[in-house]
Amino acid sequence: MHDSAAQVILLGDGMGGRPVPDLDGQTCLEAGDYPALDKVARGGECGYMDPIRPGQGVGSDTGHMVILGYDPFEYYTGRGPFEAKGAGIDVQPGDVAFRCNFASVENGIIKDRRAGRITEGTDQLASAVNEAFRDGIDGVEVIFKDSVAHRAALVLRGEGLDPRITDVDPHESGVEVPQCQPTAEASNDPAAQKTAGIINEFVQRVQEIFESHEVNQQRRAEELLPANIVMPRGAGAAPHLTPFSEQYGLSSAMIVEVDIVRGLGLYVGMDVIDVPGATGGMDTDEMAIARAVVQAAASYDFVLCNIKAPDLGGHDGNSEQKMEAIAKVDRAAGYLLDTLDWDSTVLMVSADHCTPVTAMDHTGDAIPVAFYGYGVRPDGVQSFGERPFAAGSVQRVRGLDIMSIMGNYAGSLPKFGA
Amino acid sequence: MHDSAAQVILLGDGMGGRPVPDLDGQTCLEAGDYPALDKVARGGECGYMDPIRPGQGVGSDTGHMVILGYDPFEYYTGRGPFEAKGAGIDVQPGDVAFRCNFASVENGIIKDRRAGRITEGTDQLASAVNEAFRDGIDGVEVIFKDSVAHRAALVLRGEGLDPRITDVDPHESGVEVPQCQPTAEASNDPAAQKTAGIINEFVQRVQEIFESHEVNQQRRAEELLPANIVMPRGAGAAPHLTPFSEQYGLSSAMIVEVDIVRGLGLYVGMDVIDVPGATGGMDTDEMAIARAVVQAAASYDFVLCNIKAPDLGGHDGNSEQKMEAIAKVDRAAGYLLDTLDWDSTVLMVSADHCTPVTAMDHTGDAIPVAFYGYGVRPDGVQSFGERPFAAGSVQRVRGLDIMSIMGNYAGSLPKFGA
Repeated sequence: MHDSAAQVILLGDGMGGRPVPDLDGQTCLEAGDYPALDKVARGGECGYMDPIRPGQGVGSDTGHMVILGYDPFEYYTGRGPFEAKGAGIDVQPGDVAFRCNFASVENGIIKDRRAGRITEGTDQLASAVNEAFRDGIDGVEVIFKDSVAHRAALVLRGEGLDPRITDVDPHESGVEVPQCQPTAEASNDPAAQKTAGIINEFVQRVQEIFESHEVNQQRRAEELLPANIVMPRGAGAAPHLTPFSEQYGLSSAMIVEVDIVRGLGLYVGMDVIDVPGATGGMDTDEMAIARAVVQAAASYDFVLCNIKAPDLGGHDGNSEQKMEAIAKVDRAAGYLLDTLDWDSTVLMVSADHCTPVTAMDHTGDAIPVAFYGYGVRPDGVQSFGERPFAAGSVQRVRGLDIMSIMGNYAGSLPKFGA
Repeated sequence: MHDSAAQVILLGDGMGGRPVPDLDGQTCLEAGDYPALDKVARGGECGYMDPIRPGQGVGSDTGHMVILGYDPFEYYTGRGPFEAKGAGIDVQPGDVAFRCNFASVENGIIKDRRAGRITEGTDQLASAVNEAFRDGIDGVEVIFKDSVAHRAALVLRGEGLDPRITDVDPHESGVEVPQCQPTAEASNDPAAQKTAGIINEFVQRVQEIFESHEVNQQRRAEELLPANIVMPRGAGAAPHLTPFSEQYGLSSAMIVEVDIVRGLGLYVGMDVIDVPGATGGMDTDEMAIARAVVQAAASYDFVLCNIKAPDLGGHDGNSEQKMEAIAKVDRAAGYLLDTLDWDSTVLMVSADHCTPVTAMDHTGDAIPVAFYGYGVRPDGVQSFGERPFAAGSVQRVRGLDIMSIMGNYAGSLPKFGA
């Protein structure tokens, strides 16, 4: 039982878009047949959300931060801390954290940024790293953890560190492994120089450890690319984020398919619920996700769910695929509409950002957003989409407004004043 | 060639307005026949822009500052620095700068604030001033420069100055020349007292120099009013503005008809392009301006153009004149529509402020704004105007949002986050 109405946020990752020539200038949201989304629009208050400010595109991490009420301009320093938290490292404020790839290198040239998409043995490689750096580097503690497939995370903990350093990962193969160095703005900063030096020593020594490691002996025997280097990137100083429960007085759960967003959820102390069948791909089981959301909404005050699939079609420039993915979000929404108790639930349906198939990347376009259920004032908008929402009563709000809008409908946000 | 789409901003100065009784309650924008502007509206995203915040009127300087992304609340201290830069003085951060008029005075009473609209000889007068103040005043360097007609600029450079002083120009004739003094808030500030003292000494000594100057002997012989005083006003401390290219990573050009806006452009390091025939009046050659914009858009990433004429009709309370002036903006817009490559250009059409003929001055009304071209989601608005834009998808944005909105469409603004 809740003291206030349950709050549910359903996001179709990258679901917003731009006109598609092949769809007669409609967007993927406008062109498809999405009965549940349209029902949300008809029964809801509709409009636009700018995550940070009009025009400013965001990532999945910053896009979810604003919806949860954490200002990225104040708190975001890089993806590292959320990646490391998602990988299972107990990241602490002040740590400098990195996303890493296991990769394959030959004579100093990167052969494959994902070590032949390695899936096994990375735990043994990680153990070897932690064993080797048991005494740290230069008085700084080194914590390394393997994650899914070629992914890993690294945390440096100690005095005098600075995250303003460059990536070791050049984001392409066939080139030399870059040396880590302070960014331009921090070029004379001793802490940044020290941090870059530690990373370079880390990368060098890991290569020595991995080269002859039995996991790689085995891989070479099977004619697989060796995982003989670790490339850290996305350095970020772990920020102090007030835990979600403390910030809002709400119990909360997250059902998402993107690791960095899971990491953010864990970082702010939300319960992250794993759903069997939630793959993060086009084959994800959206009905299993929807059932998990309904179940969570019965016991948590606040539930955030993100279905990743629409973003994939956006990045691929494939409008057909994106529309199929939105249909998955629509079916999940339909299950919520049929199942949740609308006398005591408020629902927001939106996206963390737009990923137009014409841009094949995130854009800073205003994102369609609809609020449905307990307390809202339906505004007469008839269908879910970018252009129909121009007539909605929400007009144009910002990401950092979402928690107070939801808290208002739900009755969980105290008034300010007497 | 651009890495991203070209960004073009076309402003009709003061183009927004209010209902005019003689136009059946339509505004000048709504009542006229502007086929190109309507085409921008039909193919674009429409809405309103508040330069600073709803209701706050702005000047040409602050109105352009926000569009270029410089917050006047943080950086604007007065028109002086931009005027001085526009006049050709190498203004440096920390300088205190003034707009000045050459004027005519008789027995301490102002006879004409523009010295009979003097057009010749002001360069000789300026030389005499700089010669006389070669050693500065009170250890402060004095730099004086004549500009167009009766206009001039003055810069004080040195320690212990403060721009919080009153204007010497009373903005009317038939009154005494005011003494310069610290403003009320700075009445006890030694730096403001020192600065006011320097200005009073400057004004006094300039009168002595000018009274017998051969330019004035000649003018008196021709029965013209003498330019026998200089009246400084609009004191401002030159702010540190990050150069435009550094702020946005874009090459940029400005094609404008207002000196203070030219000065702002020069101040932030934009290339200011002079267009023969661009007079700033009703006789301006809007097609020459439009051709210059198209030419600039081929080589610069960002081009801002302002056509001054609509503001004149607004100030004069003359709706017929204002509509003729808007027709000039419409013809310029038509040329852009016909000529630019819309697969790689984004255009914004708007104004720096509203100048309603019923107010005969700038107002803080929301300004119509439309985005057209690469990446936009046309929203179904059918004509360009204040009321039609209420149905647009832009809703209501702020001046400081414009650069990120444009950068989003053009693809020049990096996303924030991973």
